[in-house]
Amino acid sequence: MAQEGIALVMFEDTEGRRDANIRWLTGQPGDALLFLSIERKSLLVPWDILMAKAYAKADAIVPYNEFERTPIKAIKGVVERLNIPIGSKIEIPPVTPYPEFLDFVAELQDFDVICRDRSTADHAKDLRTVKDAEEIEIYHKAADITNKIIDLLEKKTRDGKIKTETDAVMLIELESRRLGCDGAAFEILAAGQGRSFGIHAFPAWTNAPFGGKGLSILDFGVRYHGYNTDVTMTFVKEPSQQQLKMVNTVEKAYKIAVDSIAERHDTLFTSLLVDECFSKSRKRMVHGLGHGIGLDVHEYPFLRSRNDMTWNLTPGMIFTIEPGIYDPMHGGCRLENDFLITESGFEVLTNSRIIWL
Amino acid sequence: MAQEGIALVMFEDTEGRRDANIRWLTGQPGDALLFLSIERKSLLVPWDILMAKAYAKADAIVPYNEFERTPIKAIKGVVERLNIPIGSKIEIPPVTPYPEFLDFVAELQDFDVICRDRSTADHAKDLRTVKDAEEIEIYHKAADITNKIIDLLEKKTRDGKIKTETDAVMLIELESRRLGCDGAAFEILAAGQGRSFGIHAFPAWTNAPFGGKGLSILDFGVRYHGYNTDVTMTFVKEPSQQQLKMVNTVEKAYKIAVDSIAERHDTLFTSLLVDECFSKSRKRMVHGLGHGIGLDVHEYPFLRSRNDMTWNLTPGMIFTIEPGIYDPMHGGCRLENDFLITESGFEVLTNSRIIWL
Repeated sequence: MAQEGIALVMFEDTEGRRDANIRWLTGQPGDALLFLSIERKSLLVPWDILMAKAYAKADAIVPYNEFERTPIKAIKGVVERLNIPIGSKIEIPPVTPYPEFLDFVAELQDFDVICRDRSTADHAKDLRTVKDAEEIEIYHKAADITNKIIDLLEKKTRDGKIKTETDAVMLIELESRRLGCDGAAFEILAAGQGRSFGIHAFPAWTNAPFGGKGLSILDFGVRYHGYNTDVTMTFVKEPSQQQLKMVNTVEKAYKIAVDSIAERHDTLFTSLLVDECFSKSRKRMVHGLGHGIGLDVHEYPFLRSRNDMTWNLTPGMIFTIEPGIYDPMHGGCRLENDFLITESGFEVLTNSRIIWL
Repeated sequence: MAQEGIALVMFEDTEGRRDANIRWLTGQPGDALLFLSIERKSLLVPWDILMAKAYAKADAIVPYNEFERTPIKAIKGVVERLNIPIGSKIEIPPVTPYPEFLDFVAELQDFDVICRDRSTADHAKDLRTVKDAEEIEIYHKAADITNKIIDLLEKKTRDGKIKTETDAVMLIELESRRLGCDGAAFEILAAGQGRSFGIHAFPAWTNAPFGGKGLSILDFGVRYHGYNTDVTMTFVKEPSQQQLKMVNTVEKAYKIAVDSIAERHDTLFTSLLVDECFSKSRKRMVHGLGHGIGLDVHEYPFLRSRNDMTWNLTPGMIFTIEPGIYDPMHGGCRLENDFLITESGFEVLTNSRIIWL
């Protein structure tokens, strides 16, 4: 901020425009504005003041109601409270819709309103790619819980106790909480043999059979102290030739990705390697190879083959690798685990795998 | 579009910028771009082509991969395919972030790029406020299922079978699917007596006790054929004087709101009436009085006391009324039901209530 002469930055976490930076910076779990001034003052404007009192730290906390729950009224009020000098640069979130941006400009005529791609919010997201020691400790615990659930899912599916998508989901929802998590990291995707053709099953889970002849997919994670894991298991039973080929291709792609990570190649390079592997099998991956995880389920770095952004792997980064193939007739197969880059190489935090029933 | 000389409109439904208009217009359940041309052509660009083939209707369906999963590449490709004349007006979503808007303008230099508040997307949202006969039939069924679950929740809490937040949530998740729903409408908020002080409990639900001495809140809905219900029950047991006063105030506010709806007052007027009721009890409501429901859990019309928007109640509108009060010491109380405006008056679709244990 100092380098760029920005006097005040606003963050917004609201329905439709979530921003985990506010939680990262203050502890507030959701629905708030946060203002940081060049004078190192933080001012939090929460929707739920009681929740903020229970969870958040900031130099000042002012209920959103005082600004009629309107971002522009809030920013004007904060400019006054913090005595931001006229003519200063004020940065608003990079996701501010264009029509709203015009409103900010009109209402803050005495200031220079900044809304840009490489924003302070993006800078915070960049900082969040590298987890610190405390965050890594949380991740080891979160992964441990995830792995216990993975083992249980395998066992109970083999034992015939998990027969439907619902059975699998209930196990995850209950066990994650029993083991001390906030809950599931996101809406669990459980797609039995009849529904695994979708990248993200729709509906997310049903009473349909799970773990029968063919390919069943289970995509889930746990949220522990706010941090998310994200794994996908594929259950294979009496596969057809075509299904066998799909599983083999996914396992091969997964291995190529892991080897490339071991070589510390950048995210774009690794993604292109995997694309090449799929092409050789006359397949094409219809989603990214992986993504960072943290307070958000999808955050930087992204492992994908679009050449607009790439990341060098840095110790402390935690991300998924998740190659997958989907076929309207034969179903889908995806294998996903969470990786931590360390000084000496990498750790596979989670222990998901293809389960042969 | 014709009136405004717009040749092409783009809709986007993506993580962080959900737009149920695409589902409403095509049936595609998520993650897609949709283009509508003045020549009445629709072109859907889904992330998951298999899902689109299973659910969506459009004049043409082109996989997002063909445009490298990039909105700007997609719009340029579509402009070409549909022969949009140079110089035409092209409308992009009103939620397009300002920096991205600049990219669209730069990449579509031969066209007039429009991004505005009262957009075609908003117009579609306006149309969605009034449900048609088929949608109302879906809502009657969804409400019927919701009401069965409400009765079951009351019974099992009285019987002592629901003892924790988890017990309540599991019942809703399982029963909603057993009764033919896609699932819960949103992450269920179950806050037992120790956690009901939050407007939206955090975490959403835990293994904490539910239905004990004091106030417990349960906020949930079901999704049926894509359409959402949304109700809140408060369970009251051996209330303190303060808690009793809170419950009475909420019930009074609720009655005032319902009476005002019966009089067909507009949404702002009703919200201000309720605010006045709270003020008289020296309370203040920290959230809106209600909101439309449909394919989105929160959609137009909004019942709130901000004077920037108001809606006249029109037959076919379906919305919630949900006054609530929250206290850090005594917990929270909210009562929420879903209302349908009819030609002759209104119907209370759901049957949530304060449960006295």
